[in-house]
Amino acid sequence: MAGPPMMMKFTKMHGLGNDFIVVAKEQALPDQVSILANRICDRNFGIGADGLVYLLPSDQADFSMRIFNADGSEPEQCGNAVRCVARYYFERISSEKRELTVETKAGIQRVWIEGDTEDRQVRVNMGPPILAGLAIPTRIDAERVVDHSVWVGTEGEEQQHFSFTGVSMGNPHAVIEVKNVEQFPVAKWGPLLENHPIFPRKANIEFISIRSEDELEMRVWERGVGETLACGTGACASLVASYIRGRTDRRVKVHLRGGELIIDWKETDGCVHMTGAATFVFDGVWLG
Amino acid sequence: MAGPPMMMKFTKMHGLGNDFIVVAKEQALPDQVSILANRICDRNFGIGADGLVYLLPSDQADFSMRIFNADGSEPEQCGNAVRCVARYYFERISSEKRELTVETKAGIQRVWIEGDTEDRQVRVNMGPPILAGLAIPTRIDAERVVDHSVWVGTEGEEQQHFSFTGVSMGNPHAVIEVKNVEQFPVAKWGPLLENHPIFPRKANIEFISIRSEDELEMRVWERGVGETLACGTGACASLVASYIRGRTDRRVKVHLRGGELIIDWKETDGCVHMTGAATFVFDGVWLG
Repeated sequence: MAGPPMMMKFTKMHGLGNDFIVVAKEQALPDQVSILANRICDRNFGIGADGLVYLLPSDQADFSMRIFNADGSEPEQCGNAVRCVARYYFERISSEKRELTVETKAGIQRVWIEGDTEDRQVRVNMGPPILAGLAIPTRIDAERVVDHSVWVGTEGEEQQHFSFTGVSMGNPHAVIEVKNVEQFPVAKWGPLLENHPIFPRKANIEFISIRSEDELEMRVWERGVGETLACGTGACASLVASYIRGRTDRRVKVHLRGGELIIDWKETDGCVHMTGAATFVFDGVWLG
Repeated sequence: MAGPPMMMKFTKMHGLGNDFIVVAKEQALPDQVSILANRICDRNFGIGADGLVYLLPSDQADFSMRIFNADGSEPEQCGNAVRCVARYYFERISSEKRELTVETKAGIQRVWIEGDTEDRQVRVNMGPPILAGLAIPTRIDAERVVDHSVWVGTEGEEQQHFSFTGVSMGNPHAVIEVKNVEQFPVAKWGPLLENHPIFPRKANIEFISIRSEDELEMRVWERGVGETLACGTGACASLVASYIRGRTDRRVKVHLRGGELIIDWKETDGCVHMTGAATFVFDGVWLG
């Protein structure tokens, strides 16, 4: 590996198994941060993580956050990462306030620190859902896309019918209710649905089973990634779709492979609030 | 996660991308070490590694080593892990001697610390190769199994012919020379060869291309695992097979996906010596 030796303090955290290297810095980002993210997120040769997250000072909010994925790209938003840095800020930097503002590339986000250290939860305002067909985007010109029929399958092979409900949480989601999500062949149908021509920018696909009016199970096929342990915006989209379809209340507990989230589509502000754990795993000094 | 909170100091190291959590302890192993290994080797919820390695005091050697895989099992030997703990011992505990003895479950191993800090290499005596057909084991009753023909492929599907040379380094290997190992479909033929009935305990499959009399490239399909970045015993087997077949000298540089190893089948002791890097990645304190 090239580059001069460095000693970098970091903390490894995860939200539902979506894991991050959190680095608090007083000043600017390091040079070539994309290359650094790529190197230290490597799970064999580096520290290993889904992303490298910087907690930086901010003029407009309590702190600012920048996130770089393992491939070096910089996403606009990541609900799991925001929860992690918010807990880090509260427990390691300042525990003055339980309501914090975070400057992100997508704007100022508001987060709330809940519970005590033993059962710490962090709530994030994920914004309002977008339901108009073309805005999600889908190719359907309608105010809402509810239980819309699609067929997938390659010619001459097995064809399968699905009914999806479209929701954007800044990124496009198609939510599909199935009988038994635990047994469902996500890897078989996920990629075919993700790439269906009805989604001009593809879509994240959530397969859900509804346990009761306030509890559902979800597995997610993430656009460009495959099945993952958890997807915060996917959990939000699943609740919104389930409420619109009259299958649940406005607030549910979502069971994902990586853990649980409470999703609440608040009537007061029309925004979806997501509450979940953010876990400290280890403190470290990188010797790279 | 169950269990009381603990603070455990560790160091993350890797040998050719085969990565380990190294813990130096004065006394006995912790209780339920298999469960611990399983938990902290998890790449999303834990520290993330192929194995948890303890460096412990020994009455019979400079130190003793115990290794637990991510699945909680305890292998008898691991050349990459021995290199890592030997470097750890030399740089963090005692740099008195450059020739060290290590007590392992497979007996006392001898290792040599070579080069300076910038280009530190560790040499391990991997023992003598076993060449007798039934001892490897294969189902062939012969003193050596050299360029033996096998056919693989499912009935009615594509059949393919391979010539393999059998070598045991404590575990069974079949070495196969191919034209262009970089382009070779390892994932297609590896599992069919691994499970061929000619190997009663299955086999690790090495696909190699020979660059010159002292350099070869190798990719490995590990028994029960799949393609991996590196396999120390596989590199040893590849050199032994290539020398027997008159294709190389007794000492070669092996290029693996995860890095390079020097393999030397010494005439003096009949043992295979493996030299390679062992890299410090980070120091940490686990907060689990």
